[in-house]
This record gives sequence, C-alpha cells and structure tokens, in this order.
Amino acid sequence: MHKNVLFAQSGGPTAVINASCYGIIKEAKKAGAKIFAARYGVEGILKDNIIEMTDIDDAALEILRYSPSSAFGSCRHKLKEEEFESVLKVFDKYDIGYFFYIGGNDSMTTADRLSKYALKVGYDIKAVGIPKTIDNDLPFTDFCPGYGSAAKYVASSVKEMALDSDVYDKGIVTIVEIMGRDSGFLTAASALAKDEVIDSPHLIYLPEVPFDENEFLKDVERAYSRKKKVFIAASEGLKNKDGQYAYLREGTADAFSNLQMGGVGKYLENLVKANIEKRVKSVELSILQRCAAHIASRVDNDVAVMVGADGVKYAMEGLTDVMVAVVRTEQGFKTSTVPLSEVAGKIKVFPAEWIDNENRQVTREAIDYMLPLVQGEAKVPYEKGLPKYTRFI
Amino acid sequence: MHKNVLFAQSGGPTAVINASCYGIIKEAKKAGAKIFAARYGVEGILKDNIIEMTDIDDAALEILRYSPSSAFGSCRHKLKEEEFESVLKVFDKYDIGYFFYIGGNDSMTTADRLSKYALKVGYDIKAVGIPKTIDNDLPFTDFCPGYGSAAKYVASSVKEMALDSDVYDKGIVTIVEIMGRDSGFLTAASALAKDEVIDSPHLIYLPEVPFDENEFLKDVERAYSRKKKVFIAASEGLKNKDGQYAYLREGTADAFSNLQMGGVGKYLENLVKANIEKRVKSVELSILQRCAAHIASRVDNDVAVMVGADGVKYAMEGLTDVMVAVVRTEQGFKTSTVPLSEVAGKIKVFPAEWIDNENRQVTREAIDYMLPLVQGEAKVPYEKGLPKYTRFI
Repeated sequence: MHKNVLFAQSGGPTAVINASCYGIIKEAKKAGAKIFAARYGVEGILKDNIIEMTDIDDAALEILRYSPSSAFGSCRHKLKEEEFESVLKVFDKYDIGYFFYIGGNDSMTTADRLSKYALKVGYDIKAVGIPKTIDNDLPFTDFCPGYGSAAKYVASSVKEMALDSDVYDKGIVTIVEIMGRDSGFLTAASALAKDEVIDSPHLIYLPEVPFDENEFLKDVERAYSRKKKVFIAASEGLKNKDGQYAYLREGTADAFSNLQMGGVGKYLENLVKANIEKRVKSVELSILQRCAAHIASRVDNDVAVMVGADGVKYAMEGLTDVMVAVVRTEQGFKTSTVPLSEVAGKIKVFPAEWIDNENRQVTREAIDYMLPLVQGEAKVPYEKGLPKYTRFI
Repeated sequence: MHKNVLFAQSGGPTAVINASCYGIIKEAKKAGAKIFAARYGVEGILKDNIIEMTDIDDAALEILRYSPSSAFGSCRHKLKEEEFESVLKVFDKYDIGYFFYIGGNDSMTTADRLSKYALKVGYDIKAVGIPKTIDNDLPFTDFCPGYGSAAKYVASSVKEMALDSDVYDKGIVTIVEIMGRDSGFLTAASALAKDEVIDSPHLIYLPEVPFDENEFLKDVERAYSRKKKVFIAASEGLKNKDGQYAYLREGTADAFSNLQMGGVGKYLENLVKANIEKRVKSVELSILQRCAAHIASRVDNDVAVMVGADGVKYAMEGLTDVMVAVVRTEQGFKTSTVPLSEVAGKIKVFPAEWIDNENRQVTREAIDYMLPLVQGEAKVPYEKGLPKYTRFI
C-alpha cells in the first residue's frame, strides 16, 4: 500500500489557493506521511518536477498560508490517455498513495479520469479534488475558496472607485470589468459595495442575462439623466441572446478550449462614448482581483485551509474520486464530499431568481449568500511595510 | 478681522487627502473657530456651495480620516481674475480669515494668486496650501502625502501580480502601467516589490528617461532570453527624445492644459506581441492606485494629518501665502513652510542620479528614500467585512 502524499495546483490562481496547501501539509504531517508537491500541476508530475515539503517549518508554512497565486506553479494541461501511465510511474517512485488536486472544473475532470485509470490498472490511490476558483462556478459546494477573497477585493475596490470616480461636479460614466467567465458570481459581488454612503454600482450586468446593446444604452441613459454619474459593473463574459460573447479579445484558447477573456469594459466604454457621454472611464480589474491577498477574506482563507485539511482526512479514511465540498451551517462552514464524476464538466451559474433584471441589480437573497464569504481580514504578514509572500517555483 | 476657517480639496484624489481635512478640523476646533468646507474646490466657493463642519463628532471624523478620494468633491477649475472678487465675497459672508487649499501644483498656483489678490484689495486672509498628490511632484517638500499610500499599493500589487503572472511553465511578458504623469516617483515605487522571493520588476521605465522603441525591445529581448518571464513597470507619461508622449489616449486637456494620460501599457503590449512574445499581458492600475485606502500607509496618513493640522497652526500664527512642506528627520517627519510663489508652476522629477539606466532599475538611494513612506498600515474601519467610508457631497 502506497503511503505518501502528493498535491498539485492547477488552473488560474487565487488569493487563498496556498491556504489549501497549508491545510493539506498540516494534516498530512499529523499522519506522519511524507509530503510532496508537484510543480506546475500535472505537468510537473509528468516531468518528475517534484519537491518534498515534509520538513517545512511552521514559520514558512504561515507565510505560505497567506501568499497569493499558486506557490507551486500551475498548468492548463489536459492529460492524454497515454500520459496516465507516466503519472502513475512517478506516483510509484515517490510511493504516493494520496493525491490532492487543487483546482476548478477542468482540474476535477483530470482528477476524476486519473482516479478511474488508476482503479482500472490496479494502482491503489486515493484521489481527492480540492475546490478553488474565483469564478465560484463549481457545483455541489456552497462556494469555492478563492471566491470569497476575490469578492471582498471587488466590493472594496468598487467602493473606493465609486468614491474616486465622481469627485468632480460634472457627468461621468464609470465601467468596471470583472472576471468570472460564464458565471456572474464575482460581478454580483460588486453589489456588496452599496451602503448608506455609496449607491454604486447603479447597473450590474451578468453573463447569465443575454446582453443587448440597445437595452444597455437605454439603461445607462435612464440612470445618467437621473444622476449624471453612473457606475456600471460588467462581467467579462457577457453574451448576446445567441450565446456569443459580446466582446472577445483576439487570442487563443487553452487546452480545455477556454477562450481568453477581457475587453468588455473598453467595448462598453466605446458604446457610451459614441451615444451618451464623452466622459467615460473603464477599469479592468484584471489579475488584481484574483491575487490581492493583502485584502483576502479571513473566512475564505479559513475555509481554504479546511478543505485542504479535511481532504486529507477523507482520503486517509479511504475515500477516493471525490471532491471536498463546502457546506453552510448556522454556525459557519463545514465540509462534505461529492463524487468527482458528478462535478466534472458541470458549471454552476448565478441563480436566475437572484437577479433583479428590471433594475440591473441582484436580490437581497444574493447579498445574504455573499456577505458571510467576505467577513474578516486574513492576517497577512508584513515586512518593511509590505506583505511578505513566498513561493516554491 | 475675519476669524473662521474654510478648506477645499482640488485636483486628483488620493487615499489620504481626507486625513488632511481631519487634521485641519481637529486643530481648528481647538482654536474655537467655525469650520467650513467648500464642495468641489474653488467651484464650490464661487457657487456658495459651502457646508459647516464645526460640529462633526469624533466618530464621523475618524471615518473621514481613513476614507479615500476627495470627500468634499474636487475640481480642476482655473480661477479667472474676475472671479477673485466673487471668492472674497463668499469668504466675507462666512467670515473666513483662514483658507486651506489641499492640492497639487495647480492648486498651489490658485492659492498663491488668490492670496496676492486679497492682499491687493485689502481683504485680510491667511491662505495656506496643503500638499497632496500621488505624483509626488511638488518641490520643496520631502514628499507629498498621498504618494506614500499610492507607492504602498503599487509595490504590494506588483508583488502580487508578479507571483500571479508567471505561474505557468511557459514564457510571458507582463506590463503594468503606473500613474505619475511627468514624474517617475510612483513607477519607481514598483522597485519596492523586490525581495528575496520576488525579482520583479525586471525592467522599469520612467518618464525622466527618453523612451526609445528599439532600446525597449532590446531590453525585453535580453531579459526574455534569460528568464522567459519578464515583468515590466512603465510610467503612463513615457516621452520620446523629442519630449513627445510615447502614447496618448485620444481625449481632451483640462483647464490647466493637463492631457489625459493612459494607454502606455497597451502600446508596449502591442510592441512586444509584434516582436518578441505572443503571451503578453498589460495591466493598467488606473484609479485603483490613488484610491486604495484599504492598504494606505500609516506613515502617509499620519503625515497627511500633520500637514493639515500644522497648516492651521502656521495660519493662526499669522503666516500666509505659504505651502506646508514635509521635512525628513532622524526621528521621522515634521513640517516647515515654503512661499507658495516658489512652489507654483514648478515640478519635481525623479532625480537622475537615482536611475540605474543601464539595468532599467532605480538605485539603493531611491529605495532608501521611498521605504519610510510605505511603513505601517492605516487603521481603516471595517463594517460587515468591508471598509467603511464617508463623503460629504
């Protein structure tokens, strides 16, 4: 029976993906296993680019916990059938009996396929998926770690930009482009910015609602005639009624056929400029929204640790081919498991009933869902006035 | 003798401009004067858009201190000669004997002209300029409040983006466009991101050094051939050897003939894409870098309070037509004054001797200058997981 632990990170980074590694390492240490990390996801496994983390000390581990991005590197590699054997050879070399793949939809599919291949060829492995994505689009989990921190960054930045953008006594339209691909969760988080002082965003556009240029211009015109200052939150993945992206940056798709997003803000800016108001500014939050660990949510970081640690517990109890899911309770969050095959290839979108489409807002229920995820400030260590981060690539 | 206090904010907002209002209000309260604020800078004075702040309570004052952007609104209005009389009429109506104008170069010019006009017509006023700008381009002051917090945001974000941008095991060029207009101070702050883990930015381009496309491409090629991962910090105000902006967004100039900046990142992205590497990403920090109060520097916030409070002290001692200047000492920072006429119309640029042009870096001396300005975290109040801010427009 193989007995060591290997973990790897995959897909787009988040502000708390390393907190899950922290959870895995802490828990696996208790079990006395040797702990390995693959660099650059499954690509690192294929290339035998493996480092041992068993002896990392507590101080370094604390810094890892609060470091953004994938400290062990990432990949968007789609494993081919003929590569599974190479993976298992490397597993065997390091005596790996427990494999943890931290990622989003595509990573869960990879973990599922690998797990089934291992079963078929008789390699005994417990393979567990650890959810992570700022898009919050994995099904069967209350939320995906990474989303809470990105939501906190988006809401805080929208507050700040709302105050900044209309300091002058003249009309202006401000547009902020927010990530999330085909899922509106992250853009919806902009609604958390509203309070007794800030009434932005005035208009929210989610990819779940077909985008129409004329409707958009009518919305903006109405808001503009009322206030002369309009703040708009728009998802990068807006699609028209035929399901085509409203705007796509020219570019290439990755191995999973995911197109490169970005550019919606500029597209909407040009629409407004040509039709309504010359003073219009668009801001693309770009990679800032997924790596801003300095304003990570404490709840999100805690849950990211928990899904990692509980993943190890589940695997050591004998579970395999499952993803750790987050469950919301009266007292906070706990975990359960869901078969990887049920998760693989599925996408959760922002619920239609949470969208107030007439006013281009989200409902109170949506706010109640999001609010607990942005609570508390993660205790990022500072050195010489700046956050102190680490990485292992 | 007029006895009340009026302050106003002008020009681009910062993360700590309201901390100076906090300082003014706190100090003026001690003197027992009535305290007024003009909304939207001198435009608010001309329109008699004045609010009284004398009775603001301590709790509200604390929130004001940590709120970003100009809580009383701003303007870019250049006072015409014939408007000075109207200004003094409003001053007289509110019995204003002390006027504080918080702003950058243009605001200091306005305060200087107003002060001289008042002297000429025999209106007794003490007019004091309070420095504020993320560009850090005011002369005769060690630094400008607002710069320290913007520098902290830039350095922290560059750290985070550096970790985020090269997680994949393949070549990439990342470009971050940073504000500062004709002054390289804010872009230079990106160098603070370097530590034992992070070696970004690999190339830094300041507006003080003439920009040449061929040299740029040679720099990037050299760095790319060495590492395959290149992180570039570029100032929005890069100029070629003829003093022309390397790239300018189409648009209009403000009343002071300041052109609207922005777009250098995309311009450099296209250069790299056409000549070196297809995987290139540019990020424009845009207004985020001047309004991110959630990561404001405590030192910067403290000094912003001090220049406001000391401004009131200087005025009540009888000084007029001066700007409060920041002075660096062994123990920290204190203030002095400099005649407004010496400041008006002058711009401080990043010192040539702090630029290591061969390596496209800044020197140790530059780091030593910047580092004290980003120390400590301002105590921004949080409510329901998000920063709590206020405004009075």
